[in-house]
This record gives sequence, C-alpha cells and structure tokens, in this order.
Amino acid sequence: MKPQMMMMLMLGGCAVHAAAGGAETIPGPLLKYTLDGRLERPMDYREWVFLTSGFDMSYVAGSPMDQHTFDNVFVDRQAYKTFMATGTWPDKTTLVIEDRGAESKGSINKSGNYQGSTLLGLEVHVKDDARFAGQWAFFAFKSAAPAEIIPASASCYSCHAAHAAVDTTFVQFYPTLLPVARGKGTLAPAYQKEAAAELK
Amino acid sequence: MKPQMMMMLMLGGCAVHAAAGGAETIPGPLLKYTLDGRLERPMDYREWVFLTSGFDMSYVAGSPMDQHTFDNVFVDRQAYKTFMATGTWPDKTTLVIEDRGAESKGSINKSGNYQGSTLLGLEVHVKDDARFAGQWAFFAFKSAAPAEIIPASASCYSCHAAHAAVDTTFVQFYPTLLPVARGKGTLAPAYQKEAAAELK
Repeated sequence: MKPQMMMMLMLGGCAVHAAAGGAETIPGPLLKYTLDGRLERPMDYREWVFLTSGFDMSYVAGSPMDQHTFDNVFVDRQAYKTFMATGTWPDKTTLVIEDRGAESKGSINKSGNYQGSTLLGLEVHVKDDARFAGQWAFFAFKSAAPAEIIPASASCYSCHAAHAAVDTTFVQFYPTLLPVARGKGTLAPAYQKEAAAELK
Repeated sequence: MKPQMMMMLMLGGCAVHAAAGGAETIPGPLLKYTLDGRLERPMDYREWVFLTSGFDMSYVAGSPMDQHTFDNVFVDRQAYKTFMATGTWPDKTTLVIEDRGAESKGSINKSGNYQGSTLLGLEVHVKDDARFAGQWAFFAFKSAAPAEIIPASASCYSCHAAHAAVDTTFVQFYPTLLPVARGKGTLAPAYQKEAAAELK
C-alpha cells in the first residue's frame, strides 16, 4: 500500500471515530466571500463561543432606543482558544455581534427582560491580513444576502482603533477575556491610559 | 503489524490531525460527581453553546434586586445538536446558568449595561435518567467546591415542571430553540395552554 493511501485511510478512520466520540468533524472555511468581495452571512455562529451580551448599550450619549435591545457577541472557536492561551487574536479571527429585541411580558417572567426570536441586526468583525489593508474589516448584514465591506473611513474603525482594549476589539466588555489580556500583558497602551484615567 | 496496533496508530494520527485542523479532541465525561453524589463544578461551560441571556429577570413579582444582573445560559454541545434535530433533550443534557453583575460606567459606554467579570452565581440543571429519580436535578454552586443536589421538594422543580416549554426546561426564553420545538411539535401541553391564554 502506498504511504499516501495509508494516510487517506487513517484520516477516514479519524473522521468516523471523531463523530462516534461526539467531537466535531474538521470544519470547512469559516467565512466565504463572493467573487466581488462581499461576505456571505455565517450560518453557524450560534455554535461558536459566546463572549458576552449587553443590554441597551450605546457609545453615544443621549441616544434612547425605540425598544430595549440585547446584543450577543460570539467568536470562532479556534480564535477563542488562541486568545485564552496568548491574549491575542490570530489571523482569520471572526467576531459576530447579533442584536435581538428584548421582551418583558411572557410566560412566568414578572420583571426584567429576556431575548426574543426576532433578529434585529448582524455584524461581523474579521481579521484577515491578506484580504484587508487594515487587517480587520466590518460587515453589516441587512438581510440574508452577502454584505459589502464597511469602508475603512467609517467611524467604527477609528473608534475601535482608539478605544479597544486588544487589537481593535472591545475586550473590555468581554468579562472572561479581559482578565486573560491583563494577565498576558496584551492590553493596548491607549486603552490602559483611558482605564487609568477613569480610576482617578 | 497487529490490527490492534494499527488501530492505535490510526487514532494517534487522528488526534494530531484533528488538532491541526482546528477540530476538538474527543471530550471526556461532561460532568463528574463525588462519591457522595455532589456535583463537581464544570470548568469549561463557557465553551458550550450559548442559549440566551436575560437582564434582571425574575419569576416573582415585586422583587427588586440590589443590583442589575445578567444571566447567561449554556448547554452542552451534544445536547444542543440533538435538540436542533429533534426538539427534545437527550439523556445527560446539561444546562448551566451563570449570573453576572451588570456594569454601566466604563470605557466608552454611555448608556445601558454590559457584563462584569464578577460571577454572582452558577447553577446546573442536568438530565440523568439512571442517577435521578425525577430524571432532572438542580445544583447550585456557592463556591468552587462540589455542590449538593437541590432536594426534589424545592420549588424550582415544581415550577419548571408546571411552566417549562420543553421537558422541564424554559425553552420559551431561548430564542433559537423555541421555533425548533414549535416546528418539531415538542412543546409541553401545559406550556401551550398557558401561551394560548396569554394571547387572549
């Protein structure tokens, strides 16, 4: 038997064994782009790693919303594992933020808010050194159709660059990641300066 | 080479390949119990599948909290996959709910709330037909130490049995699961009756 054939058999055995043991099969590409550079909407991000959720968060003062809103943030599993080990994001890191309407009256809930089934928005923040001049790019989905890149001149880029705790991402709002970044010494200098000023 | 040896080599090759491809290694037992039946605190639940988060939710009227609180709900990956395929929970299903204090002032946040690093509580709801007379059991962790089972006479059991949308779990608050249960026809009759009454 040729060595190459043996390798194929071994990989075949691997896939079957992994499925039987409950582990995942080897994933395909995380993200797909159209030929003209639009990003296809990721379909499986709810199986990625959850980082946090916010309630009615806003970075702009005096901007009341029409309705209460939750935002849930997810990151792909490989990037999460790298971050937990190093405090940094590897190439191809992909974060997804989804917005959901908040409900209050339903079933036995008497106060506070829970998340409704209506998806209000979906955005992707992806690091891809070969694809984007600034390493990272934002995409906002308005429907199931592929999304165009948000131009690098948009304020989301400059705001993230200026205020993000780690590598243009808002790790300061991700409660299990912030202590890791602090421990690994990977907090951005500008963020550290801002955080120190807040304490005064 | 003996067939058994070949199998071991194949599995060895599998593990290396799986790690390189980003897939997970084959997991060990999901939960561990002490000899006297206490549950050891699950350490990796933040890598399980996120179901939802709530904000200041309460099932009891007129119970204002000392501080704003988020609760995040996770389920093990195998149970999630089964639920998405069938609308039902398999044996060994494990849900974890963690409570976190909500923060409002920090970094560039101007309104609303984000999740803080302080864990306020951790509870487990687990289905294990061979271990629990009522199939499901609750455990509440007060520290890193193993937790004793909450007695079956506690109100959490009767409340979940009476009001839960699917198999004693509050799927009515899990926005991506509720449509699945509805589609698969697995909503509990008592829940359906309550939900219909709400619409009147």
